[in-house]
Amino acid sequence: MHPCQVPTGETVDLNQIPTRDEVIFPISKDEGKKLFEEMLEEIDELQTRLYAEGKHRLLVVFQAMDCGGKDGTIRNVFNPMDPQGIRAVSFKRPSSEELAHDYLWRVHEHVPGNGETVIFNRSHYEDIVAVRVREIFLESRWSKRYDHIVNFEKMLADEGTKIVKIFLHISKDEQKQRLQDRLDEKDKNWKFNPGDLEDRALWPKFMTAYSDVISKTSTAQNPWHVVPADRKWYRNLIVASIVIEALTSLDMKYPPVDFDPESIVIE
Amino acid sequence: MHPCQVPTGETVDLNQIPTRDEVIFPISKDEGKKLFEEMLEEIDELQTRLYAEGKHRLLVVFQAMDCGGKDGTIRNVFNPMDPQGIRAVSFKRPSSEELAHDYLWRVHEHVPGNGETVIFNRSHYEDIVAVRVREIFLESRWSKRYDHIVNFEKMLADEGTKIVKIFLHISKDEQKQRLQDRLDEKDKNWKFNPGDLEDRALWPKFMTAYSDVISKTSTAQNPWHVVPADRKWYRNLIVASIVIEALTSLDMKYPPVDFDPESIVIE
Repeated sequence: MHPCQVPTGETVDLNQIPTRDEVIFPISKDEGKKLFEEMLEEIDELQTRLYAEGKHRLLVVFQAMDCGGKDGTIRNVFNPMDPQGIRAVSFKRPSSEELAHDYLWRVHEHVPGNGETVIFNRSHYEDIVAVRVREIFLESRWSKRYDHIVNFEKMLADEGTKIVKIFLHISKDEQKQRLQDRLDEKDKNWKFNPGDLEDRALWPKFMTAYSDVISKTSTAQNPWHVVPADRKWYRNLIVASIVIEALTSLDMKYPPVDFDPESIVIE
Repeated sequence: MHPCQVPTGETVDLNQIPTRDEVIFPISKDEGKKLFEEMLEEIDELQTRLYAEGKHRLLVVFQAMDCGGKDGTIRNVFNPMDPQGIRAVSFKRPSSEELAHDYLWRVHEHVPGNGETVIFNRSHYEDIVAVRVREIFLESRWSKRYDHIVNFEKMLADEGTKIVKIFLHISKDEQKQRLQDRLDEKDKNWKFNPGDLEDRALWPKFMTAYSDVISKTSTAQNPWHVVPADRKWYRNLIVASIVIEALTSLDMKYPPVDFDPESIVIE
């Protein structure tokens, strides 16, 4: 089990979990960067095998507070993959057509097919967390969704989808620093959204909502991972190691060929 | 509760349930046809309200043996509805892209949105029944699907979809008669599919599989109805009465207007 994995039934309090770690990879940043390059090669090889075998499906779900590093992680860890077999899906505020359906409708559409890797940048977990913190629905409505989501993911997994759920965990101070950078650096101004400050003011409520959702939806089959994400290079290493562990567990093989390669003469 | 509804937890044996009934509507065929016309008007009025209110979603699922009357029922009971608010979806053998995903993927895409009525002609229930009877997967795989489907339908219902599941129950003799008609009447020849005879030979296995699936997936929230369907005019009456009961239970209202109609003068 990966050290960041949340065991089934464990009650998580994110306020008690460090956002900076030095134990899992006790190495320097330079050593970390070298290791990361090796890991990317391994991921590339594993994903090629996933695509070639065409049997399993990989779904990686990212959730985080604003500035948590979702975009950066996806760019760093997944961009080396062959774009033929990978898709990143970003879930924004739902459209009116999406709101006219159950909240899993737009999510289900995008789940991976055989041999595919799909990355969710935000996900159906917003339909509990954001809805709860911003008080969009009553608890009687969003509280039913824990079970819906556990059941939905169980069905996906039973039918052949490997699901990896990752929460990028940063401190409130780290968020302040990253928001300030967006204001200070002209090329980053476009990333700043005044609405992020409203969510920042709700930090304690978000921590409670995320703690609950991670506690209630981390299963042995479809576990959550809480990744210490204050240091970007370190976060990338952890996420890469989680993805490698998940793909390795699938025990994938290149598909057998129905001819004897040695008997073929190319004239 | 409708007399054809299967109560939660009841173990159904279709071999013991009559395919012809005279108790629910103790009337003649002529009287039945008159009553049916009145019911169609009521359905039309209820569906207009569903569409206008734009709050609920209606999903009607039909399953039956070949010649069970799915097409005829859909044509008779639902065609008078306004096509703007209704869609019929026929699930055939899955495509290779569909087979590359979980079996609920193609189904979820077609569920109704707010104000919509969707009719499923066959459904995700084939992914248990047909898969089991034709021995396409091992039991370890299809047996997990009872829970998947119960959970999937629960989520849809929690989120605002009224689900009505109807099994059109005909006798093996009635099927023989209808298949013979397709051979005898030249204009019906196109409906005859030699593959139907293979399924007919598996009749006892289908009855067991349908009995199990109906027993295990009929819930108070999303019940099954077993409709005696040997007589077509009578079957239409029963199905219409089920649809009326379902729509009436939604207690729908036309949306309020934000002006006083009496104060408006059209010059």
